[in-house]
Amino acid sequence: MQEFPLSKVYQLLEPGPVVLLTTLDREGQANVMTLSWHMMVDFEPPLLACVVSSNDYSFNALRASRECTIAVPAVELADKVVQAGNTSGRNVGKFQAIGLTPLPGRQVQAPLIAECFANLECKVIDTRLVNKFNIFVLEVVQAWIDSGQPHPKTIHHQGYGQFVVDGETILIASQMR
Amino acid sequence: MQEFPLSKVYQLLEPGPVVLLTTLDREGQANVMTLSWHMMVDFEPPLLACVVSSNDYSFNALRASRECTIAVPAVELADKVVQAGNTSGRNVGKFQAIGLTPLPGRQVQAPLIAECFANLECKVIDTRLVNKFNIFVLEVVQAWIDSGQPHPKTIHHQGYGQFVVDGETILIASQMR
Repeated sequence: MQEFPLSKVYQLLEPGPVVLLTTLDREGQANVMTLSWHMMVDFEPPLLACVVSSNDYSFNALRASRECTIAVPAVELADKVVQAGNTSGRNVGKFQAIGLTPLPGRQVQAPLIAECFANLECKVIDTRLVNKFNIFVLEVVQAWIDSGQPHPKTIHHQGYGQFVVDGETILIASQMR
Repeated sequence: MQEFPLSKVYQLLEPGPVVLLTTLDREGQANVMTLSWHMMVDFEPPLLACVVSSNDYSFNALRASRECTIAVPAVELADKVVQAGNTSGRNVGKFQAIGLTPLPGRQVQAPLIAECFANLECKVIDTRLVNKFNIFVLEVVQAWIDSGQPHPKTIHHQGYGQFVVDGETILIASQMR
């Protein structure tokens, strides 16, 4: 994993890929969940928001530790992404059960995922909408990219295990960042 | 436009497409902006969050009227999506300038967009994070689909006018909604 500029983080998340969110709970147990409900909030420092349901086992760890890592999987990991969404850390050590490799981060305790092409270490910076909507606001404090996966195609969830895979890329002259 | 079940709205937005957001200001002027920073918040009633910058001309209309329509364009509208992102309603009547057709909605004053394959009429339900983060929480109160566009491909912004278009679809047995 190589360091990735924080100024470019939004380019990874703005397209709306399914991601994996890792946490570390008070007992030192790492967990991973599948997440599609996220959005960018600001460019730099990169801020994002996500919805982690209070029904999810990761919820308490995220709220208590105020840290997580968001890992972006390419389409080759689609089966593991579904497995992560269909099992709960309540019952199983998911990293081992699914076959994902935790790596230590630099600024947060929640592990990176070796198989993902990008990893974003995040701190929780606002919880005002957690009680009502399960919305966490996060700041990305460290970003990593795997140069061994130079052209990853991401997946986008359309419901009930149906995913659309990145297709062709088009470029239109634009002043938009 | 046919009515679309609110229970399925998340399937349109969860994949993270670029959308258009329309508003109506106090003078009765409709405006439209390009929006990628949105996420689902709950399934039913469908809640979502979005970031509309206080620099955007739509910001005041959205905050004052507490209403908007989110329209989902297919790839054929990519040029118009970029035009909407590169011009401001401060200077120009964007619907006419871009060549988009406003249609009356049923429950909100902000217009639907005839050329988009889906239109979601929304009410603002939470503004606590507007001052700090420009995050609005919305409830979709009415949804419409154009059955004349049965297999639309959406676009996802990767920054600076580069978009990835929906590619192949894969289905993996899953208990996830």
